[in-house]
Amino acid sequence: MARLSTRTRDLHASPVRQMLEVAMRPEVISFAGGLPAAETFAGLEAATPPPSELMQYGPTEGEPALRAQIAAELQALGIDAPPERVLVLSGSQQGIDLAAKLVVDVEAAIAVEQPAYLAALQVFRFFGARFETLDRAAPGAGWAEAAPRLAYVTPTFQNPTGVCWSAEERAALAAACDVHEVILFEDDPYRDLVYAPCERRPAVAGLTRASWIYQGSFSKTVSPGLRLGFLAASEDLFTYLVRLKQAADLHTNRLSQWRVLQYLTAPDRAQRMGKVAAFYREKRDAFDAALQRHLGGLADWEVPPGGLFFWVTLRGGADAQALLARALDRNVLFTPGGHFLADGGACSSMRLNFSLAEPEAAERGLAILGELLREGA
Amino acid sequence: MARLSTRTRDLHASPVRQMLEVAMRPEVISFAGGLPAAETFAGLEAATPPPSELMQYGPTEGEPALRAQIAAELQALGIDAPPERVLVLSGSQQGIDLAAKLVVDVEAAIAVEQPAYLAALQVFRFFGARFETLDRAAPGAGWAEAAPRLAYVTPTFQNPTGVCWSAEERAALAAACDVHEVILFEDDPYRDLVYAPCERRPAVAGLTRASWIYQGSFSKTVSPGLRLGFLAASEDLFTYLVRLKQAADLHTNRLSQWRVLQYLTAPDRAQRMGKVAAFYREKRDAFDAALQRHLGGLADWEVPPGGLFFWVTLRGGADAQALLARALDRNVLFTPGGHFLADGGACSSMRLNFSLAEPEAAERGLAILGELLREGA
Repeated sequence: MARLSTRTRDLHASPVRQMLEVAMRPEVISFAGGLPAAETFAGLEAATPPPSELMQYGPTEGEPALRAQIAAELQALGIDAPPERVLVLSGSQQGIDLAAKLVVDVEAAIAVEQPAYLAALQVFRFFGARFETLDRAAPGAGWAEAAPRLAYVTPTFQNPTGVCWSAEERAALAAACDVHEVILFEDDPYRDLVYAPCERRPAVAGLTRASWIYQGSFSKTVSPGLRLGFLAASEDLFTYLVRLKQAADLHTNRLSQWRVLQYLTAPDRAQRMGKVAAFYREKRDAFDAALQRHLGGLADWEVPPGGLFFWVTLRGGADAQALLARALDRNVLFTPGGHFLADGGACSSMRLNFSLAEPEAAERGLAILGELLREGA
Repeated sequence: MARLSTRTRDLHASPVRQMLEVAMRPEVISFAGGLPAAETFAGLEAATPPPSELMQYGPTEGEPALRAQIAAELQALGIDAPPERVLVLSGSQQGIDLAAKLVVDVEAAIAVEQPAYLAALQVFRFFGARFETLDRAAPGAGWAEAAPRLAYVTPTFQNPTGVCWSAEERAALAAACDVHEVILFEDDPYRDLVYAPCERRPAVAGLTRASWIYQGSFSKTVSPGLRLGFLAASEDLFTYLVRLKQAADLHTNRLSQWRVLQYLTAPDRAQRMGKVAAFYREKRDAFDAALQRHLGGLADWEVPPGGLFFWVTLRGGADAQALLARALDRNVLFTPGGHFLADGGACSSMRLNFSLAEPEAAERGLAILGELLREGA
């Protein structure tokens, strides 16, 4: 018998991955993943071919021109991020792996929203983290006694809830991190998918002394298949993160970096992004209308101001996991809310992705969920 | 002060990375990296554009067609690797990170060649490994008392020595792993860069019961900038490795996978690879001639039958690190052998890469090393 690390004892299959496999079946209507709509990739193929010197090994930190472009955009958001402190990532999932390696020891306390992005919970848990709940209405409560090492948050169109933190909530979190020397790790993959006015100033922009990591993704604005994200970090953390990146995969794919730079500097970028946001806003509104038709009176939800998800809570404390088991028999898939809870457990909420399914399929899928809820009642 | 993981205490800057930075200066003659010659990228740009569905998220394991192609090639080498047990990686450095996560606890024993690939030593060390030396003339010696969890080897054109293990040495290693239940992790990035007849059958092909991981790279045959590698593994390890890959970066860049599949299935692939090997053989021979001219009588080396490096040992126990300090003043860079030793320490050998420098620059760089050695004597 091969002897494996103690870490692997808790290495359960990712629920996301298993669901994505089911979602690949053509007969299945999936609300489960976070996949962007294929329509949004249009117009990105036309780029001129990359220069051949990008075939060689490149710098661990990323291509200088791309780092400079990202830094300029972060500085415009109020983040203290010169180009020298931008690290290009092989997708923003990698940033979570690097941050966990940097910060998490066995039993180290990490503060997370409840619910929180499940693939972040998995990585922190793998390295042995203990979770505590971060209440966005009172960040830092209890930190005077025992402060966590790191607070992981997605304040802008949170995954899974779609919530957007207010300016006051962001400022209170930054202040608490400053006072208690908690590393603020802000994950911001959805910020450009905005459908209604709301506060989007990064929370890290409000810090005065705490260490921080801020990361973003090009998976929702350009293409997930390119696997491209980035992070910026405070000076004390940045050098470590670069070394960890080098040990993880040397550097990020250079052709993807070139393509994303083309996207970021294209003259029609704002126009294109406006179209993408309008396309998703329309999908969101159609989804909301279908939800009202089929789940009205059976569940509650807020219309998300951005992002790709509805967070729908079943009335009467019904268990979303039990609903999923029955929905799968009818070829409908969604992510039950329990997957987003640090301590697992039953949950009457479910995350419904509205970006991928075609309108007719979404209508059909929600009708089936409504039927099942009525049958189950 | 941010509180970081205990792991970060030993997170020194990578010597490779720091040297690559120096190597970027135009005035520097670098023998330090493992960079393929840019000439070998010729003809790879002409690929037709990838289908747009590759812009979407893809499977963690990799593209099915690429996995099937890789599996067929591994099976032809005698490795028990069906497509279902092939995992596409974001470069083979990633395979080392995944294997370390899977196997290494603090103080876990890992057997490595002495010297061994430095970036592998770094990753295993980061997770807390304790190293023991694997003697290829007597693998398994001492394992009856205490067997390591894993043996990490590069039997084909080893990095840094260029050594190619004999059939008997490969068989003895496999037998020792079988008897003592040691995971065999074979890293095989150079196998196609072959310049003389020698045994190249993978050691893992000789296993009958031990767990194993075998990995390869497309960085030396296609392009490092694409960041593409792969692993295959025994059934008991594979599922874990997929889960770790998912947590690390979800999946590998799909456009790179598409380009590599085009390369692997191109009708002129064998012809192209033959030209690349002939090109490197010529570079190797010219480098050997220049070494004889400038370091003859001052150092010893074998002409490597494959790979990208000469392993050159200074006579009289001269310290290669001390030579490097003086060489840098003259803008010549190489990797001192101590970096490849698990316990660090002084070493009179140096690794010289022969693939990157132009012939005239190589001649000049080796002349400078010769001068310095004569001065120092």
